[in-house]
Amino acid sequence: MKIIVLGCGLVGGVIAKDMFDRGYQVTVADISSDALARVGDYPDIVTEKANLTNSDRLQALIDPFDLVIGAVPGFMGFNTVKHVIQSRKNIVDISFFPENALELESFAYENHVQAVVDCGVAPGFSHLAFGFLSRYFDDPISLACYVGGLPIIREKPFEYKIVFSPFDVIEEYTRPARIVYNGKVQIKEPLSEVEALYFDQIGTLEAFNSDGLRTLIHTLKVPNMIEKTLRYPGHAEKMKLLRDAGFFSQTPVMVHGALVSPLDMTAKTLFQKLKMREDEQDLTVMRIIGIGRKGDKVLRYSFEMCDRYDPEKKFTSMARTTGFTCSSTAHLLLQGHIEQRGLICPEYLGMDPDFLDLLMQELADRGIVIHRKEEEIEV
Amino acid sequence: MKIIVLGCGLVGGVIAKDMFDRGYQVTVADISSDALARVGDYPDIVTEKANLTNSDRLQALIDPFDLVIGAVPGFMGFNTVKHVIQSRKNIVDISFFPENALELESFAYENHVQAVVDCGVAPGFSHLAFGFLSRYFDDPISLACYVGGLPIIREKPFEYKIVFSPFDVIEEYTRPARIVYNGKVQIKEPLSEVEALYFDQIGTLEAFNSDGLRTLIHTLKVPNMIEKTLRYPGHAEKMKLLRDAGFFSQTPVMVHGALVSPLDMTAKTLFQKLKMREDEQDLTVMRIIGIGRKGDKVLRYSFEMCDRYDPEKKFTSMARTTGFTCSSTAHLLLQGHIEQRGLICPEYLGMDPDFLDLLMQELADRGIVIHRKEEEIEV
Repeated sequence: MKIIVLGCGLVGGVIAKDMFDRGYQVTVADISSDALARVGDYPDIVTEKANLTNSDRLQALIDPFDLVIGAVPGFMGFNTVKHVIQSRKNIVDISFFPENALELESFAYENHVQAVVDCGVAPGFSHLAFGFLSRYFDDPISLACYVGGLPIIREKPFEYKIVFSPFDVIEEYTRPARIVYNGKVQIKEPLSEVEALYFDQIGTLEAFNSDGLRTLIHTLKVPNMIEKTLRYPGHAEKMKLLRDAGFFSQTPVMVHGALVSPLDMTAKTLFQKLKMREDEQDLTVMRIIGIGRKGDKVLRYSFEMCDRYDPEKKFTSMARTTGFTCSSTAHLLLQGHIEQRGLICPEYLGMDPDFLDLLMQELADRGIVIHRKEEEIEV
Repeated sequence: MKIIVLGCGLVGGVIAKDMFDRGYQVTVADISSDALARVGDYPDIVTEKANLTNSDRLQALIDPFDLVIGAVPGFMGFNTVKHVIQSRKNIVDISFFPENALELESFAYENHVQAVVDCGVAPGFSHLAFGFLSRYFDDPISLACYVGGLPIIREKPFEYKIVFSPFDVIEEYTRPARIVYNGKVQIKEPLSEVEALYFDQIGTLEAFNSDGLRTLIHTLKVPNMIEKTLRYPGHAEKMKLLRDAGFFSQTPVMVHGALVSPLDMTAKTLFQKLKMREDEQDLTVMRIIGIGRKGDKVLRYSFEMCDRYDPEKKFTSMARTTGFTCSSTAHLLLQGHIEQRGLICPEYLGMDPDFLDLLMQELADRGIVIHRKEEEIEV
């Protein structure tokens, strides 16, 4: 079977290679030759230099393929998915576009496609786990996801490195965080409610509110849901200082006759400095905790993952966890394990426990081991 | 006697009023009508709107006066003092220009003037105290000055308000701090070597290295000298974060086609926000500690001052402590208490204990009480 990966960034490159290793015929398209060079060590992967924002070019490009995998930058994501749906091709997407994916629901249904969105690690695996837990309990009480990508080497003062765009990271620190509390959506200040959490092999991290629930707010009927971002301790306070001092502000100020937004300057100076090099080692840590009633018991069901950089293949953990969730889902879709049609949020997939088992096996085969644990809570 | 004050900023205005209250005929000059309005409640003070960077205008302006008091912004200070000297007028200056005042030494001498520079609180009174202590001991061991201006109301996160130009404050946090250690000049990182100091009525403050010794490095032969800036605890760490994150950098970066220095943007956004309003209440705290041998004893001799905003006259403490040291010195000069000629650094004045007593009496008469204490140190 023939698949095409749109976008050959850090994640797109890893997806293309993994799909090839699984025996698919793989083409990868990107506007940048430098990006396409990422798959240079896989000479049998076909590369296409193409401007993917050109919808005619895009349609012609994807026409011969059985499945499209979307791995373009976030700002291009929504339109790319829309064009793929319009071309009546199935897609698994990890572009994490800012728009609400649910707006594509009827469009995807009418075009008879399977369009899996937000299919990375978080959002992605986290949503599968939330979907699973929402069904596993007779009466789910709360679902929480703690997740973060961190450099293995901790360098003061921020002890953080950026793997995506600086603007996306700053967005996490400025966008009001939506959580669900007692059945209602509440807005929390980003970087707020910092708590300390201990992780084996890593130590104590801090978690703070961020806006990561996305579609879950609309798709699941669970009375309490929260997503928090993990960082090394002290990070939130420092970012709060920069935010409160105005360095993330988008309101331009006049400096020597030029209108400049502090955010742009900050992204250009500080956040360029914090950019992780491709060979720099990172880790991804995720803890998902569900609490709910099952029969006459109150249970705590958790998922826990700590993934690290792969020095042999030189894959960052961010690209591994994001890319392999996507490629595994694409594989399972191609093998006929997804029956749903239309727009498919990962939480829908997780509602099928067998699918979750299959996906976790695919991830485990690639060294991403996610531990599940169930305990009874004395109440 | 007739005196003219150049510059009617926060400090210049207070000086003009104090000189008037002492019975002098006072004129004050400034380029800004808004600034001159500061002395509007003293109708007998003559105001002159004038561009003081125009040297011909300046010379004509100061010609009729017995003494000039310099209170222009720092960047204009050096040239203004130079022109006043050239016009053979005596001057007492508090402009705190960045240039080395000692470069004017022979020029002042040749023009037969008395030119007292750096004549505020610190530099100013602190230098007088250092001069006094350098002579008071038979064998001075170390002199330290801790000084800072703080808002009375502490607002997180910075707990600081700016009374001068934002650039001058940032300069304190970025300019390498020169100290004297074991008879040699050493360079310390600004904001470094933070220590906690307790002050009655105020509580614990922090002190860090800053470049405040100025002429003392050249004029006094004391083996150990240091100046540290006082802030509420935690301030240095936050400013260090901003500095290390690049926000005080003067190297321009390209943002949307415009070259912008992060420093300019920071001064424009954050530091404008931290600007103290004229009616906002501040305090000034200073501790000077001299240690030295006198006879067969080792003594610790200290000066300590805590001055507060004057709600009746609406004078900030910064303007009071800076301005009254200047006006008191001007008064003592006019009354014939200064015999030295040429360029006069305040430390030279302090070497005369009688002059120091007179000055402290003038300050005390204006509510600025500086406590002196001498103790024997057991060695």
